[in-house]
Amino acid sequence: MAEEVKLFGARGSPFSCRVEIALNIKGVQYEFVEEDLFNKSPLLLKYNPVHKKIPVLLHNGKPIAESAVIIEYIDETWEGAPILPEDPYERAMARFWTKFIDEKCMAAAWKACWSKDEQDKAMEEASELLRALENELKDKKFFGGDRIGLVDIAADFIGFWLRLIQEITGAKLLTKEKFPKLCDWIDEFLSCNAVKESLPPRELLLAFLQARVFPSSAPSISPSK
Amino acid sequence: MAEEVKLFGARGSPFSCRVEIALNIKGVQYEFVEEDLFNKSPLLLKYNPVHKKIPVLLHNGKPIAESAVIIEYIDETWEGAPILPEDPYERAMARFWTKFIDEKCMAAAWKACWSKDEQDKAMEEASELLRALENELKDKKFFGGDRIGLVDIAADFIGFWLRLIQEITGAKLLTKEKFPKLCDWIDEFLSCNAVKESLPPRELLLAFLQARVFPSSAPSISPSK
Repeated sequence: MAEEVKLFGARGSPFSCRVEIALNIKGVQYEFVEEDLFNKSPLLLKYNPVHKKIPVLLHNGKPIAESAVIIEYIDETWEGAPILPEDPYERAMARFWTKFIDEKCMAAAWKACWSKDEQDKAMEEASELLRALENELKDKKFFGGDRIGLVDIAADFIGFWLRLIQEITGAKLLTKEKFPKLCDWIDEFLSCNAVKESLPPRELLLAFLQARVFPSSAPSISPSK
Repeated sequence: MAEEVKLFGARGSPFSCRVEIALNIKGVQYEFVEEDLFNKSPLLLKYNPVHKKIPVLLHNGKPIAESAVIIEYIDETWEGAPILPEDPYERAMARFWTKFIDEKCMAAAWKACWSKDEQDKAMEEASELLRALENELKDKKFFGGDRIGLVDIAADFIGFWLRLIQEITGAKLLTKEKFPKLCDWIDEFLSCNAVKESLPPRELLLAFLQARVFPSSAPSISPSK
C-alpha cells in the first residue's frame, strides 16, 4: 500500500517550511495542501482542533500538529540523514535552542522589525537574543555541527524570512557587522538542497507578509531596495 | 567514579517538581540545590545564562535547562520505567500535549484563579483548555495510558498546584462536576510513589505562592476553607 503523507501548510509560513525541509532531508515524497489562513479548511480544523493552525502532517490517516513535534516525528519515522543528534546531551541542547528560537527569538525579531513604538528597545532585546544564537554557533558550520539539524531547521525564519522583512522595513537587526557568524550560517543554510527545495519564492513571500501584516488595509509593500 | 546529579530548583515550583518526579521514576539519586528565586546563585546564572531560571539539571558537569527538555534527557539517559512511549506517533502526541500544557493551560489556569479583572472571561478560556485535556484522557488512567508518563508529569501543576490555589482564592475552575476525568486523574497522579516523593509540603507551597503572588506587599494568604 502506498504511504500517505500530506502536509497541510501555507507557503510563506516559516513553520510550514520547517516541515518541508525535514521531509526533504529524509527524501520523503509528500503532497502539499495549501491552506488559506483566513478561511481554514474543515480538514485542517478536524486534524488540529486544539490550535486550528498549520502545519499539520497527515501520515497514513494520523494527524500531527506543531512544527517542532512534527520534525521529531519525521526523524523517528523515516530513515535517511538524522535530524537530531544521537547523544542524549546533544539532543537536549538541540531541543533547548529550538525552544529558545520558538519562544523568544521569532517574536522578538518580528517586533523589532515591524514595531513603530519603542523600536530601539525592541531592537536591543532582539539583538540580545540573536547574540545568544551567534555565540552558540561558535565555529560550527551549522547549529547541528557539520550538517543541518533540528536547530537549523527551526531557525529558518532567521535564515530566510528575516532578511526579506529587513528589506521591506529597512530595519537593521541582523547585519554582517553585528552577527558575522549568523550571516555565514545563513549562506550555508541557503545552500542546502533540502532548504532550497522548501523555501517559498520571494514574490509569494512578499504577498504572504503583506496579507499577514496588513490584512485589512493591505497597502502595497515594496522592498526598500 | 560516582555519578554527579544535581538539580538546581525551588521547592514550590511545578517546573522543578517535574524534574524530581522524572528522576524518582527512574530511581536516580540526586542532590537538590534550593535556589532563592529572588537572589539567584552565581552557579544557576552560570549554568543557565540564557534564561537564568530553574530548573537546571547538572549531570557530570553538564547543565541542561527547561523542564520538558530535561525530562526527555532523563528518559534517554537512565534505565527504568520509560517516560515517553516507544511508538513515534504516541511520542509525538505526548510532546504535543506537553507543549499545550506549557504554552496554554498553565498561564490560563493561573490567570483564571488570580485575576480580578475579567475573571469570567479568564475562567471561560481556562475551562476550554482544561476541557481539551479532559477529552484527551478518554478512559485512560493516566495521559500516558496505564502508567505515568511525560504528559502526566508536565501536568503536575494541574495535579497538585491548582487545587491549592483554588483553596486560597476560592476559584471554582477545576471541579468534579465540570471535569470528572481530570479529577479522577488527580487521584491517580497523587497516589504514585514518584509523585509523592517529589511534591512540596503544603505549608511550604503556601509560603512559596505567597512570595510569588505578593512579593512586595506580602499579605498573609490563608486558604478559603
